[in-house]
Amino acid sequence: MPFTVKALQKTGPDQPFQVTEIERRDPRADDVVIDIKAAGICHSDIHTIRNEWGEAHFPLCVGHEIAGIVEAVGEDVTRYKVGDRVGVGCLVDSCGECEQCAMDEEQSCLNGSVGTYNAEDVDGTITQGGYSEKVVVNERFVLRIPDALDFDVAAPLLCAGITTYSPLARWGAGEKVQAEDGERAKRVAVLGLGGLGHMGVQIAAKMGAEVTVLSRSLKKEQLAIDMGATRMLATTEDGFFRDHRGEFDLILNTISADIPVDKYLSLLTPRGVMAVVGLPPEQQKVGFGSLIGGSKVLAGSNIGGIAETQEMLDFCAEHGIAAQIETIGVTEADAMYDKVVAGEVFFRAVIDTATFDQVEVEQPA
Amino acid sequence: MPFTVKALQKTGPDQPFQVTEIERRDPRADDVVIDIKAAGICHSDIHTIRNEWGEAHFPLCVGHEIAGIVEAVGEDVTRYKVGDRVGVGCLVDSCGECEQCAMDEEQSCLNGSVGTYNAEDVDGTITQGGYSEKVVVNERFVLRIPDALDFDVAAPLLCAGITTYSPLARWGAGEKVQAEDGERAKRVAVLGLGGLGHMGVQIAAKMGAEVTVLSRSLKKEQLAIDMGATRMLATTEDGFFRDHRGEFDLILNTISADIPVDKYLSLLTPRGVMAVVGLPPEQQKVGFGSLIGGSKVLAGSNIGGIAETQEMLDFCAEHGIAAQIETIGVTEADAMYDKVVAGEVFFRAVIDTATFDQVEVEQPA
Repeated sequence: MPFTVKALQKTGPDQPFQVTEIERRDPRADDVVIDIKAAGICHSDIHTIRNEWGEAHFPLCVGHEIAGIVEAVGEDVTRYKVGDRVGVGCLVDSCGECEQCAMDEEQSCLNGSVGTYNAEDVDGTITQGGYSEKVVVNERFVLRIPDALDFDVAAPLLCAGITTYSPLARWGAGEKVQAEDGERAKRVAVLGLGGLGHMGVQIAAKMGAEVTVLSRSLKKEQLAIDMGATRMLATTEDGFFRDHRGEFDLILNTISADIPVDKYLSLLTPRGVMAVVGLPPEQQKVGFGSLIGGSKVLAGSNIGGIAETQEMLDFCAEHGIAAQIETIGVTEADAMYDKVVAGEVFFRAVIDTATFDQVEVEQPA
Repeated sequence: MPFTVKALQKTGPDQPFQVTEIERRDPRADDVVIDIKAAGICHSDIHTIRNEWGEAHFPLCVGHEIAGIVEAVGEDVTRYKVGDRVGVGCLVDSCGECEQCAMDEEQSCLNGSVGTYNAEDVDGTITQGGYSEKVVVNERFVLRIPDALDFDVAAPLLCAGITTYSPLARWGAGEKVQAEDGERAKRVAVLGLGGLGHMGVQIAAKMGAEVTVLSRSLKKEQLAIDMGATRMLATTEDGFFRDHRGEFDLILNTISADIPVDKYLSLLTPRGVMAVVGLPPEQQKVGFGSLIGGSKVLAGSNIGGIAETQEMLDFCAEHGIAAQIETIGVTEADAMYDKVVAGEVFFRAVIDTATFDQVEVEQPA
């Protein structure tokens, strides 16, 4: 039977969050019911709910960094049992049959994957995300959260973690390079040290790369070092691009602002890769000569598939990697959105969903 | 002892070719003296000598698609002997010690590779290319031309061949893709069917890809099919980008004009790659969203290393791949340049250097 749970929803882009009751579906045979413990606040949530990525379906509950405990399972569920520690990321369904799904790239499902919120589900309803007490998800899209990871620091891994892990893995951040005098670690630069960047730094360092953080200023230098970076460089310094020409095997660009792409490509070694996961609003200018000289690569990356997300969680647990978080209660979400947009949150904000117990429903769904 | 040979040189960007005598160096211990039989005309030759890529060093003899016979070898040469069929491509030297050279990527030598013409050689002289009777080259930069390839059709492989082979190999044009119903060949689109494109089509087809040629018109359709393409599509047709969305695993862009990059990226499958080897004069606009959605790749490619060039020659010989050429004598080079620029040469023009015998030196070097 469908059931109702408390959720944070907005009724429009300029409306405050309201505590509402939303309906979760009657669990199907292959569904898992998750009692949500923590929900990360991703910049995508803000873009979506502020209509910056097109008109959202209101009323809407966002959130695709979800961690919690299995509360019930459908009769055909084999992977999870009640009490398991689990998570849900950006996806809740895909066709499971196309060649992308066959390659474990469900996020690129040729028949259209279903996003965790603001997406049309297979039953025609609009998906409602993780700023909520519970969620019902097909077991294929449920991840196992290793015991070593607390819920609150694990939640952001489901989006920020996989978004950075996937390109770092694809482009071999952990591989060695044959150098004149034996082999050397890959030199990886992470551009931007926010929600995405701080995951990228930790993951790349634990993969074995020599990590440099690039940012406009050095104000987070000590934090960068603490996360495993060898150094931090300010891109605004005189001669920065000249002094670091040809230095990096891989640049992970996590920022969403315009950048001088050709200048950044000049920082790469031959056959080097600039992987972009941040989405600037405008088209960027790229000189093909900057790519052809040195046979360089400009690559996009969109989260990762479910199997790779599990691999990332296990990797993070094994290496003690977690998101650096600031925890808030459900009533603080609007204020936190403003702080995130103002760049005042150093890394990741996470909603402690236990605080739903302390608030009354303001408006039924 | 240094010796003189006839060569075609220009004394300035607007000057006609002149038959001159140029000096070739006294062969060093590791040098090979090559009696040139054929020299391909590459668009790079024209760009260089017309000062379109910066001011060239005049008087200059261009040409980096060189095929001929070994006439003499230095005392330490081990790879070649007199009478061997050999070729020289875009490079004649590199440090041999940096990590790029160690990876057989001499074209990206960190200490600067030496181009076959218009480059400062290790002895400080300016290199003179293949529109000439003979050339002296370090054996490390000499390729073996398999018996199955005639000199004239082999010469263009040394630039046009490797320029297309390398990205097709790097990005797995010959690999299979796991599809719903078993595996399928990669779907490769070659954009442009000129000197580069016609090599790319043949190579990709023989690697095992399903090849589509994309061009503004279908006037070369039969030629495309003859070279191994499954079909040719006109990009100017109404609805082209809509109808072929998500279709190609790999696009090899051989054209040097501005293109709507985002539209071409939309033709790619998830994780698909657009490899660019043509250099448009202006920066191109790229929406990072076009790369991030589907985790797509925009990659440049600059010729290839020496080992890979040999691999390409052997591959072409094994599979009966050759350049489609139009042969000219040394007196026809100026007229041919105009034809190439006007797009009137279907594939590749090659100078028959035996015709140097029929002309007198107009001006000493």
